[in-house]
Amino acid sequence: MATHPVTEFISPSAWALVEDKFSPFAKETLAKLVDFVQTEVVPAQKAYHEVIPTDPSKRWTTANPVIKDLKRKARKLGLWNLFGVPLTNLEYAVMAEVMGRTGTLASEATNCSAPDTGNMEVLARYGSPEQQKKWLIPLLNGEIRSAFAMTEYGTASSDATNVSTSIRVEGDEIVINGHKWWISGAGDVRCAFHIVVGKSDPTNPNKHLQQSAILVPANTPGVKVIRNMHVFGYDDAPEGHAEIVYTNVRVPVSNVIAGWGRGFEILQGRLGPGRIHHCMRAIGIAQGALDIMIQRVTNPDRKTFGKALYEHGTIIADIARSRAELDGARLLVLSAAHQIDKVKAKGAFKDIGMAKFIVPTVALGVVDRAMQSHGAEGLSQDTTLAKSWSWMRVLRIADGPDEVHIQQIGKEELKRAPALHRRTAETKEREAKIDAQWKTAL
Amino acid sequence: MATHPVTEFISPSAWALVEDKFSPFAKETLAKLVDFVQTEVVPAQKAYHEVIPTDPSKRWTTANPVIKDLKRKARKLGLWNLFGVPLTNLEYAVMAEVMGRTGTLASEATNCSAPDTGNMEVLARYGSPEQQKKWLIPLLNGEIRSAFAMTEYGTASSDATNVSTSIRVEGDEIVINGHKWWISGAGDVRCAFHIVVGKSDPTNPNKHLQQSAILVPANTPGVKVIRNMHVFGYDDAPEGHAEIVYTNVRVPVSNVIAGWGRGFEILQGRLGPGRIHHCMRAIGIAQGALDIMIQRVTNPDRKTFGKALYEHGTIIADIARSRAELDGARLLVLSAAHQIDKVKAKGAFKDIGMAKFIVPTVALGVVDRAMQSHGAEGLSQDTTLAKSWSWMRVLRIADGPDEVHIQQIGKEELKRAPALHRRTAETKEREAKIDAQWKTAL
Amino acid sequence: MATHPVTEFISPSAWALVEDKFSPFAKETLAKLVDFVQTEVVPAQKAYHEVIPTDPSKRWTTANPVIKDLKRKARKLGLWNLFGVPLTNLEYAVMAEVMGRTGTLASEATNCSAPDTGNMEVLARYGSPEQQKKWLIPLLNGEIRSAFAMTEYGTASSDATNVSTSIRVEGDEIVINGHKWWISGAGDVRCAFHIVVGKSDPTNPNKHLQQSAILVPANTPGVKVIRNMHVFGYDDAPEGHAEIVYTNVRVPVSNVIAGWGRGFEILQGRLGPGRIHHCMRAIGIAQGALDIMIQRVTNPDRKTFGKALYEHGTIIADIARSRAELDGARLLVLSAAHQIDKVKAKGAFKDIGMAKFIVPTVALGVVDRAMQSHGAEGLSQDTTLAKSWSWMRVLRIADGPDEVHIQQIGKEELKRAPALHRRTAETKEREAKIDAQWKTAL
Amino acid sequence: MATHPVTEFISPSAWALVEDKFSPFAKETLAKLVDFVQTEVVPAQKAYHEVIPTDPSKRWTTANPVIKDLKRKARKLGLWNLFGVPLTNLEYAVMAEVMGRTGTLASEATNCSAPDTGNMEVLARYGSPEQQKKWLIPLLNGEIRSAFAMTEYGTASSDATNVSTSIRVEGDEIVINGHKWWISGAGDVRCAFHIVVGKSDPTNPNKHLQQSAILVPANTPGVKVIRNMHVFGYDDAPEGHAEIVYTNVRVPVSNVIAGWGRGFEILQGRLGPGRIHHCMRAIGIAQGALDIMIQRVTNPDRKTFGKALYEHGTIIADIARSRAELDGARLLVLSAAHQIDKVKAKGAFKDIGMAKFIVPTVALGVVDRAMQSHGAEGLSQDTTLAKSWSWMRVLRIADGPDEVHIQQIGKEELKRAPALHRRTAETKEREAKIDAQWKTAL
Repeated sequence: MATHPVTEFISPSAWALVEDKFSPFAKETLAKLVDFVQTEVVPAQKAYHEVIPTDPSKRWTTANPVIKDLKRKARKLGLWNLFGVPLTNLEYAVMAEVMGRTGTLASEATNCSAPDTGNMEVLARYGSPEQQKKWLIPLLNGEIRSAFAMTEYGTASSDATNVSTSIRVEGDEIVINGHKWWISGAGDVRCAFHIVVGKSDPTNPNKHLQQSAILVPANTPGVKVIRNMHVFGYDDAPEGHAEIVYTNVRVPVSNVIAGWGRGFEILQGRLGPGRIHHCMRAIGIAQGALDIMIQRVTNPDRKTFGKALYEHGTIIADIARSRAELDGARLLVLSAAHQIDKVKAKGAFKDIGMAKFIVPTVALGVVDRAMQSHGAEGLSQDTTLAKSWSWMRVLRIADGPDEVHIQQIGKEELKRAPALHRRTAETKEREAKIDAQWKTAL
Repeated sequence: MATHPVTEFISPSAWALVEDKFSPFAKETLAKLVDFVQTEVVPAQKAYHEVIPTDPSKRWTTANPVIKDLKRKARKLGLWNLFGVPLTNLEYAVMAEVMGRTGTLASEATNCSAPDTGNMEVLARYGSPEQQKKWLIPLLNGEIRSAFAMTEYGTASSDATNVSTSIRVEGDEIVINGHKWWISGAGDVRCAFHIVVGKSDPTNPNKHLQQSAILVPANTPGVKVIRNMHVFGYDDAPEGHAEIVYTNVRVPVSNVIAGWGRGFEILQGRLGPGRIHHCMRAIGIAQGALDIMIQRVTNPDRKTFGKALYEHGTIIADIARSRAELDGARLLVLSAAHQIDKVKAKGAFKDIGMAKFIVPTVALGVVDRAMQSHGAEGLSQDTTLAKSWSWMRVLRIADGPDEVHIQQIGKEELKRAPALHRRTAETKEREAKIDAQWKTAL
Repeated sequence: MATHPVTEFISPSAWALVEDKFSPFAKETLAKLVDFVQTEVVPAQKAYHEVIPTDPSKRWTTANPVIKDLKRKARKLGLWNLFGVPLTNLEYAVMAEVMGRTGTLASEATNCSAPDTGNMEVLARYGSPEQQKKWLIPLLNGEIRSAFAMTEYGTASSDATNVSTSIRVEGDEIVINGHKWWISGAGDVRCAFHIVVGKSDPTNPNKHLQQSAILVPANTPGVKVIRNMHVFGYDDAPEGHAEIVYTNVRVPVSNVIAGWGRGFEILQGRLGPGRIHHCMRAIGIAQGALDIMIQRVTNPDRKTFGKALYEHGTIIADIARSRAELDGARLLVLSAAHQIDKVKAKGAFKDIGMAKFIVPTVALGVVDRAMQSHGAEGLSQDTTLAKSWSWMRVLRIADGPDEVHIQQIGKEELKRAPALHRRTAETKEREAKIDAQWKTAL
Repeated sequence: MATHPVTEFISPSAWALVEDKFSPFAKETLAKLVDFVQTEVVPAQKAYHEVIPTDPSKRWTTANPVIKDLKRKARKLGLWNLFGVPLTNLEYAVMAEVMGRTGTLASEATNCSAPDTGNMEVLARYGSPEQQKKWLIPLLNGEIRSAFAMTEYGTASSDATNVSTSIRVEGDEIVINGHKWWISGAGDVRCAFHIVVGKSDPTNPNKHLQQSAILVPANTPGVKVIRNMHVFGYDDAPEGHAEIVYTNVRVPVSNVIAGWGRGFEILQGRLGPGRIHHCMRAIGIAQGALDIMIQRVTNPDRKTFGKALYEHGTIIADIARSRAELDGARLLVLSAAHQIDKVKAKGAFKDIGMAKFIVPTVALGVVDRAMQSHGAEGLSQDTTLAKSWSWMRVLRIADGPDEVHIQQIGKEELKRAPALHRRTAETKEREAKIDAQWKTAL
């Protein structure tokens, strides 16, 4: 019994365009999710943040009871590991927008949050039975969390082959030495393991075979979180973005994932659909910001110079643009998600990449206008807007900065050139004939 | 036998998203259209323009034989009055993009060009049997062309109620006096009639009942085309945009369309789907411009400072952005077209309006980058780009300037405010409960 | 002996344009300031931030010894109260850019920081001798700091007449009740007094005479800082932006500034030049961000895909645009500052307003590109960029949101209409004559 | 006796900033120019365009009597060859803005129009006494006009070393073969000579010594104007942009300018100040467009939906932005002009380049908004706006496309990197000391 129609959350026309591609199961799940998010997660946000200790000594060591309770409820409703159940990328994309309404909270409540989902995929596809039993099962049960340790301090890491953390074998052990940062979730008290990517075969002539991915329990001696990185002024507790030094960290050789030298392959495999999820959550966040803005500018208590806010200057135009840009961006992501379903992530490379660089900028624009309509309050801790903006800003860098994607898409698009040159040559030939014919006729 | 796959013309992912909504007939028609446009219309463009006389005395009085021949071919292929055959708005929208590759030429070749399509609709829906026999049938047969005379000289006509042309009854005749301009197609030697909108009942308290629409044969005494308006430097012969003075123009009272005072209603009815067609043709034009740009920047003869054009500065980024913006805009129009199919133009008001103000600006950006990549040649008569740009620029004004649509959409979006305020009130209530519960618990 | 030429800090061409308007004293002071900022303040920034306690219980109660030391040095060099010494607005504007290189630190070191400068001006112009002795002198000596309490919680305060804090007289006391927030500096342990603006005469028919400004010692009973507002997660300690409740706060009637009902006048007077200072500091911050970006993208250790960062994609174009936009914005502010010198703040209303809404957006763009070039590091606590961005973002709202200024400037510009209509009428008349003459001649 | 104050034409604050750099002569000349432009040139524009024949057979062969008359008047007033009299670049820049109010008409009336001014400079600096007597004197007297034939058909000419027109010596004659286009003014009946740049020494190892510049009388056998290029549909008669084929064109060896192999040098020398003139004329055009817009939106006859145009949506914001952007751009050009006066064009390279790529885009934005406020009329022959827009669009390409300048400026800006790295190193060292000191102290 859905009390909140889906079209209150996502644009009715986008929904109309994709609805017939949803299975009955997906529709039912979506309806449940919408209700759960609206009835349980949205109103729990305040409590969730209030229970995080501000005292630095407790901030990173206290588990958050609010999220634990939400997880229990979600699981009971069957809203669990949605990324794992048989949903298409398109179906999941729409759900990711709904979850995005609460930033990451609904994702975590339904055990669908990064980097865990990506790590589950890696372990499901590449993990040994032992690895799966020990790490995948508790992850799927939401009992532990995990981290993916790729980005390195002092390395230009938007080029993954630059990774320099040393991974070498000594007897039946792997020894890891390196310095990572921006390892999301590694600061969380519940983080049980890291997947560490490093250079295991630096002299391999194929530079895509020089890397390996290793399972490292978070409490292994030599693993040291030295601080949490801030994003603007936020430390993003309780997950955080840890800076970690790995000093002579030793794990059994059985902890290598997929096999020696397959780190780059694992890395690549994780990126496609994950980008779509980020994008759709971003759409959800921005749509939520637009909704907040609409409420603010129609608030009868907020008159200035004798007029409601929406009657001033460019506010109405800002709202119209926000809506239109958001609707266009949403369709772009849904189209990419559907393309993944049709021709796999590799075939949808261009569509994913376009969504990746378009969506954060659109979302930033929408959230920025919403902030502006709130005055200073919009930049403060009293709305979700400033935090949302900071997250959208991260998305222009995470999983590769805009510039890298833009270059890749541009180059991909240039590959159409030979076909276009051919078609033009044909046209020119035919044009000459037609031309000659008319010159004779007239 | 399609030699040109549809996905060479429209984005593969957009096609994948809508393909299953196409009937077999629509698919077949689309395939034929793609081939016809590519094989016949694109290569005939040059000849079409060359046969238009430059001599001012013949420029507006000579019928163009090239288009006549294209029409014959199209009709033979069953590519005729596509807007009239049973196609959904979504299906037709995709075809409009394909036609747009040649500006308006393919639209005219298939008897699908403005303002004729809109006039056909008006006559089909509102025309008397006599009106239909005399004017609709030859229009459907492509034997004549027509004009829609709305915009007035000296009147702020983005507000249609401002129309001031006088329409009054004298005995069994209607007498028309007025000064119109920007009447597209009225300069064409084949234009057989105008639908003239004017003020027939200026004192009616309902200002939407003050207008009537009258059928006026182009050769009626008192109808005088005094000049053709230019757009940038283009006169857009052979159709043109005429400035017309109507001086005591007399037609029988039977020439009123739909009934006295129904001019505003007729006006409103013609706008929704027509805007979608303009938008999709614009997408087609812009996609064509991007294709031209890709060819230019990969042209090996165009090296500067030792590098191909695409290797310079921001060219690749320009291409990536153009592609992404175009893909997003296309999806927005397709989504609006589909929404018209689902809930009629009135229900799709917001979607149509967003497409209307987003698409021309996106298209202008794409065409502008393509021009820039061609240097001065891109601004000249040697490519189609400058002409395309000028047409896209018109679209920011035609059928209402951007500003009007943006305000309308913004206001429409604000109508969501009460529901949002309600939802927020519910959330706040629930939030208070949850909050209290955790405060007690901890 | 200047070891750091001025043109290392501000654009050589801007300096060349204004240099001859600088007095010898101003030139000498500027040279000293440049050296002081570069040699003392820039390298002290790290220490300044490190000594601020992170422990919430000490964060707002500890005076910062680093700034105290810098103040001592600055005063010894004669770099003190620069806003007070005989400098023109143009001269001071250039110095404000230099100070802006360190955010607010150099401003504070030279006793030139907001809101103290504005408060000094108010007291110097409007204060009674007793007020000046008690509050202005220690402020000029840098012994205390101060706050200006205008913005109210729950009031749309971009329209100053909306202020609702109650100010009334009881016997020989003034009683204040109100709820303010975003009161910068009021959280600082050194803050000795607030200038509180409230409604003292709510029924006065002239709504610009309903307000008064009252001097309130920070330790007056009933003054309660209830929290500090955050800006993108930053609490901006040690100054902060306080939320303050004034409950039956009583001060002697002699604490009214300038006279009963002159609050609005005082408010208006303080805004013009202050906006120029904010703008020039913003230019300094953005110029510093561009310098950091140039270093980052030329860093030989930062190669990706075999190329230095600056060789990738749009980086060079980003730098060129940043430089050009910054140079244009700087000139706009300098021109406004010079105009204040020529025709006072009132005469320079339009120039100040344009600078006010152009500069923050330009600066945000420059800082954003610099952040992007640093990857995630650029968003973190490891560079000054994210903090700078957050401050620039505040500037789009502080002292009136962009939208208010844009509307004011637009309306001001429309006042040119009558003169333009007149000139056009003259031209048309003359045009008709010339036209007639040539028609006869030919 | 100035009846039109200068500040009616250029922004008062910009004028205030530069006024004291103007000589008395320059001030007097500027005042005369303002009056001449406003009283004589502006009202003659209509007549000037009306007398140009539309008949293709006469369009390019008829001298325009209106301009001849204006030239006579200007010369009488001493407003002649202003670029030649002793004016600084800054002084001339302001005058160029005033002239720009009429597009190119006032420039031509005062014998200051491109490409003649550039050609005069070349002949004055490099011409032999015979060349000067024969070509420079009549050019200075405004008796003839001239062309500069650089851009080639089929050559990527934004890289000047690509020029491929063959220039070789046969006996005492030079033989020229080549295909040029976009040769402005060469279509004009009064064009007496071309300066043709071509490749004279293709195997010279220094590719900047391979070119020569040759004086070619327009009526030399073998010089054939094959058509005039259009810009957005405009043929720009009577000057036009000619496509020219040079077939075995023979001139005496004495017609080489400056000496064999000095073509590139001549080319470079002509560009700096000329770019400033183009920019300032563009500012004048855009300022004129803003003035027209202000009149349009305040026109009481132009109400829609019950409100004047300026009361709708974003119009006021558009005007405010236009004004601010224009003021910033003007200051950027004036600053560059002044920099040329201080350190020559070479020293002002960066300032000129920034003006070159910023101004046309700003001007396009301003003119575009003005067009939009006029509806379709703004795109037509009934205002100057569409023509102005097309010219501004050309400026993004002429004398090098934006992209080339942006790359050059970006690279130039990167040259500051070593100094910045050095300064940072110094700062770090000092920072370490200060840091250590405080750590010890606390």
